[in-house]
Amino acid sequence: MQALILNFVTTIEKLVIDDPRRIVHSFKVALAITLVSTVYYLKPLYKDMGDASLWAVMTVVVVFEYTAGATLCKGMNRGLATLLGGALGIGAKYLASLSGPKAEPIVLGCIIFLLAASATFSRFIPHIKKRYDYGVMIFILTFSLVAVSGYRVDKIIELAYQRLSTIIIGCATCIIISICVCPVWAGEDLHNLVVSNLEKLASFLEAGFGGQIPFEGDGVNSSNEPDKSSCLVAYKSVLNSKAAEESLANFAWWEPGHGKFGLYHPWKQYLKIGVASRQCGSHIEALNGYLDANFQISSELRKRVEEPCIKMCSEAGTTLKELANSMKSFSCPLKSTMHLQTCKEAVDEVNAMLKASFVGEFDILEITPIIRVVSMLIEIVKCVETIHVAIEELSEQAH
Amino acid sequence: MQALILNFVTTIEKLVIDDPRRIVHSFKVALAITLVSTVYYLKPLYKDMGDASLWAVMTVVVVFEYTAGATLCKGMNRGLATLLGGALGIGAKYLASLSGPKAEPIVLGCIIFLLAASATFSRFIPHIKKRYDYGVMIFILTFSLVAVSGYRVDKIIELAYQRLSTIIIGCATCIIISICVCPVWAGEDLHNLVVSNLEKLASFLEAGFGGQIPFEGDGVNSSNEPDKSSCLVAYKSVLNSKAAEESLANFAWWEPGHGKFGLYHPWKQYLKIGVASRQCGSHIEALNGYLDANFQISSELRKRVEEPCIKMCSEAGTTLKELANSMKSFSCPLKSTMHLQTCKEAVDEVNAMLKASFVGEFDILEITPIIRVVSMLIEIVKCVETIHVAIEELSEQAH
Repeated sequence: MQALILNFVTTIEKLVIDDPRRIVHSFKVALAITLVSTVYYLKPLYKDMGDASLWAVMTVVVVFEYTAGATLCKGMNRGLATLLGGALGIGAKYLASLSGPKAEPIVLGCIIFLLAASATFSRFIPHIKKRYDYGVMIFILTFSLVAVSGYRVDKIIELAYQRLSTIIIGCATCIIISICVCPVWAGEDLHNLVVSNLEKLASFLEAGFGGQIPFEGDGVNSSNEPDKSSCLVAYKSVLNSKAAEESLANFAWWEPGHGKFGLYHPWKQYLKIGVASRQCGSHIEALNGYLDANFQISSELRKRVEEPCIKMCSEAGTTLKELANSMKSFSCPLKSTMHLQTCKEAVDEVNAMLKASFVGEFDILEITPIIRVVSMLIEIVKCVETIHVAIEELSEQAH
Repeated sequence: MQALILNFVTTIEKLVIDDPRRIVHSFKVALAITLVSTVYYLKPLYKDMGDASLWAVMTVVVVFEYTAGATLCKGMNRGLATLLGGALGIGAKYLASLSGPKAEPIVLGCIIFLLAASATFSRFIPHIKKRYDYGVMIFILTFSLVAVSGYRVDKIIELAYQRLSTIIIGCATCIIISICVCPVWAGEDLHNLVVSNLEKLASFLEAGFGGQIPFEGDGVNSSNEPDKSSCLVAYKSVLNSKAAEESLANFAWWEPGHGKFGLYHPWKQYLKIGVASRQCGSHIEALNGYLDANFQISSELRKRVEEPCIKMCSEAGTTLKELANSMKSFSCPLKSTMHLQTCKEAVDEVNAMLKASFVGEFDILEITPIIRVVSMLIEIVKCVETIHVAIEELSEQAH
């Protein structure tokens, strides 16, 4: 029991330390709900809205999301879908009423059936699923509510008006609070995520694979095991960042300009950088796994390629670090071009070295791991180059 | 304009052909909404429920998901959260009423604020986020609705009862229709997804990399380019299946036993198989990329390793195919063990071959690509072994 409580407290602590904005978000939601529910307490407002003011509370609970972009996405979707659904619902109700009181429920039922089926199907269309999924759901909801309740409530227009206005109050409250009170911008989070991923890869490479690059000692250095494992976890998180990046980019699309980010900031370019980073990360993982498993060599050839390989690795790391810095400061990547050049020179050097070495000198089992390591490093350098190009494009598009 | 319409029709057609159950799902949703809205038309039911019967329509729209598991997850979450939120809401209302009519709204406001803040924060806890996210949202919603409306509506218990009973009607309709009318089981989908991923990898390997395995011809065979590209797309989809597998496994957890799947089917094991499949896929991608870019060799060494390599590749493919078949028929993987054995023998053979070759015979540039290809193939065989072990575990756990 005590262990359970301790475990719970640790989890909460970790959540807060990882991102203190989570606490702020919780209070923002609570504030919005409390604000909106005062509509219900204040007599003048209540007279106008009636029990429909409960819809405002509901809207706030459902629409308020962690990032401003997500809140905007849901709020806009909900508002527009309610408007459209309400209008069509009223239309359907009048259409059905033309067929006489007996046939009315049947006609209404058929209309609802057809519209619900086709709207539900439209949620499978990829573009709609990505951006308007919630809107279509609210459209079906409002349409059926208005059309169905129209059968009993005569004041159908008033109902639709009440529902729409309370939902607008709810959405507006959410959007205003989420943008004005300590906003969490999806775009900024995406930018920081991409930058921190680059930094993780960079520090891993700069340290020469957490100190285990085989050209310095012999194989794995077991004394700094904890250091290595934290490094490993760091770049593993790069490999798993795809889903987070895509949803952030999707929400960032909805956000107005803020800080250094304009309204039409090229968010898609961040996804390209992300893909290249993950590719780089997976090469690093492959190399890392290979070193862990197979690396025990000492040979003449190793000594020859040692220097350019260390250079390759650390320069690739520096290139990534400079790229991350230039992204942070929203400047053109200039320094990184230089480091990338040095990196490529090191690649040429290694290649020349290998070409010059006549194989007769060495045993095949001796050189196999060296060739593998070298070619994996070359792959990593290629990825770094791809990242460089993508960031240059980003800096051009953003200006 | 015409192009737009044509494009639209093609998209719809593709959606239907890819998975005809989508059409069925749309009709199921429409059926559920139409059924529930008859509650509103039928006088005896309407008398009992009043306008609250609209909640049933709403519940159906919001709860009905594509798979039975997802519908069950949302339905159970919504039902239980409404019960809990309603009960606590009534409690809060009575607690606040003790403090006198003037202080009541203030006390209520404070209670709502605190509860909403802490419940919102709890949605960040990973375990709750994974399984009960929707439930917590509905809890906040019901709690604030009941507590706020309690300030005006005296018949608060009746309101809570109406809301709960209509929501139960809505959830029950959804769950019954989604389980009884052409059910889409998340568990079955997960099973089929994992099996089809194995088959994709298998056919790629069995065909010797879409006919381009370099030991048969020289480099890429450009005549069957379209075949190759469709193969490429097939295994690329394996690499991107992580998110789908995880959400299906999550929903499968909610499903009752069905067909060959028991109530406690080891769904987590499927995720393990998925991880190994993706690893295998990424090795295949690396090898494929390497072959595309670098492979132009003809050497004595190649001839020596040619035979065991082709054997390794095709036996690895057959092993995967047999594993997929044994998963399909829910039997123990026996045949695959044999093929895996042959595969491992081929690996030993190649290793012995390399060991026996004295390097003096060959040029380093000549053997480098061969060594790389061989070692990548060995990595693929290792992955196949991991998949084999995971599927054996699955078959043990399932029986």
